[in-house]
Amino acid sequence: MENNAILSALSARKSVRVFTTDPVTPDERAAILNAAFQAPTAGNQQLYTILDITDPALKATLADLCDHQPFIAGAPLVLVFLADCRRWLNAYHAAGITDARKPGAGDLMLAVADTCIAAQNAVVAAESLGIGSCYIGDVLENAEAMRDALHLPQYVVPACMLVFGRPTEQQQRRPKPARFAEQAVVCENVYTDRTPDELRADFAAKAAANGQLDYDFDKAVQAFCKRKYASDFSREMTRSAEIYWKEFL
Amino acid sequence: MENNAILSALSARKSVRVFTTDPVTPDERAAILNAAFQAPTAGNQQLYTILDITDPALKATLADLCDHQPFIAGAPLVLVFLADCRRWLNAYHAAGITDARKPGAGDLMLAVADTCIAAQNAVVAAESLGIGSCYIGDVLENAEAMRDALHLPQYVVPACMLVFGRPTEQQQRRPKPARFAEQAVVCENVYTDRTPDELRADFAAKAAANGQLDYDFDKAVQAFCKRKYASDFSREMTRSAEIYWKEFL
Repeated sequence: MENNAILSALSARKSVRVFTTDPVTPDERAAILNAAFQAPTAGNQQLYTILDITDPALKATLADLCDHQPFIAGAPLVLVFLADCRRWLNAYHAAGITDARKPGAGDLMLAVADTCIAAQNAVVAAESLGIGSCYIGDVLENAEAMRDALHLPQYVVPACMLVFGRPTEQQQRRPKPARFAEQAVVCENVYTDRTPDELRADFAAKAAANGQLDYDFDKAVQAFCKRKYASDFSREMTRSAEIYWKEFL
Repeated sequence: MENNAILSALSARKSVRVFTTDPVTPDERAAILNAAFQAPTAGNQQLYTILDITDPALKATLADLCDHQPFIAGAPLVLVFLADCRRWLNAYHAAGITDARKPGAGDLMLAVADTCIAAQNAVVAAESLGIGSCYIGDVLENAEAMRDALHLPQYVVPACMLVFGRPTEQQQRRPKPARFAEQAVVCENVYTDRTPDELRADFAAKAAANGQLDYDFDKAVQAFCKRKYASDFSREMTRSAEIYWKEFL
């Protein structure tokens, strides 16, 4: 099947971490936010709050709290997407409901889904305007300092952060990394583990698609594990996420 | 700013719950899945597994487990999006790593975000092909029966489900519900609660945009709370989500 313009745009989109100094205009910002609002949302509730970080000092704080990534501070548009189980609870109270239960694990999961679905619409909208973006998962870290910096109250949890700006020429030229082939990530009907041999083949095929013809599975996966999964920031993310979860248990 | 074709498509997209009997073709299915794969993903890890539910009996089981919604069973394409903290752990083991930590709360949160971001790309891709979709958040419910039906192993958690198909004429004509205005869901820099009066105004403005000019905040919000937040399915979602969470604590 031939790609239409939307399929092509979804395929072409890649993360951008270096931005030109051009601003994101108010109209562009409004279009990006509107796309987020128009995303599918459970029961039309919009279970999120979006923080538009305009204060340069706060951008710098976020850059520091999100695993020390200075490019965050230089992004023209920084949006923090918060899973919000609070607004509707406040509305229930405002409507005179006195016995509303406290939000639980299911409410948080549903709100995180709602929030990330809205965020991805913002990404696709930005791309259509020539504006690049990058997700910052590290916004989950440092719960105590993050709550303090963003004034996060009870039942409000960071789900993801997005930085936006126009890509530099170097960023435009950067190749997009290839993904796994379908059989590596799709199962028919029921979950089936990939065998160790299948995993080796899946990872090698992806590496080959990325031009790495001398791929050494053991070495590459060990190095990735050390750099990511076993890293301090990854352990911090779990410590921090548990703090947010505890409110919902 | 004038809407481009992508912004227009994102704004026009609405949930579809009644499908024609037309199938989703293999090429269309491949384009939808490819869009999911091409979504942004943390460290290029693709922290999800997608189940393509082709077995009619399993579709019927899911329809039942997801708050008894028969239209699910009739959807031509049903995809369950699983947050997968297992594939990479298996790869670490296959690469000879013997001391990998168990996945934690941060890993699950990151995987849920990754999964929902991929799912929303699938929605946008489908829309561009004239294929409607609906998220089924209820896939979070009934953890025990869901694990059994989908053979979910440790460290694999449903994040969302999507059903796809061509909209009937009636569904095409159905108006899309209006969203909250920006000030209701966006804050500058730090989180700020809407006051009870602001909440009343936010909800009334949305109702007016939806043509409800005689909106009664107290009555409408009380009814919504009863139907959704205080419902059996909502309580079940939290009970069930906690079962999945426990593995990660």
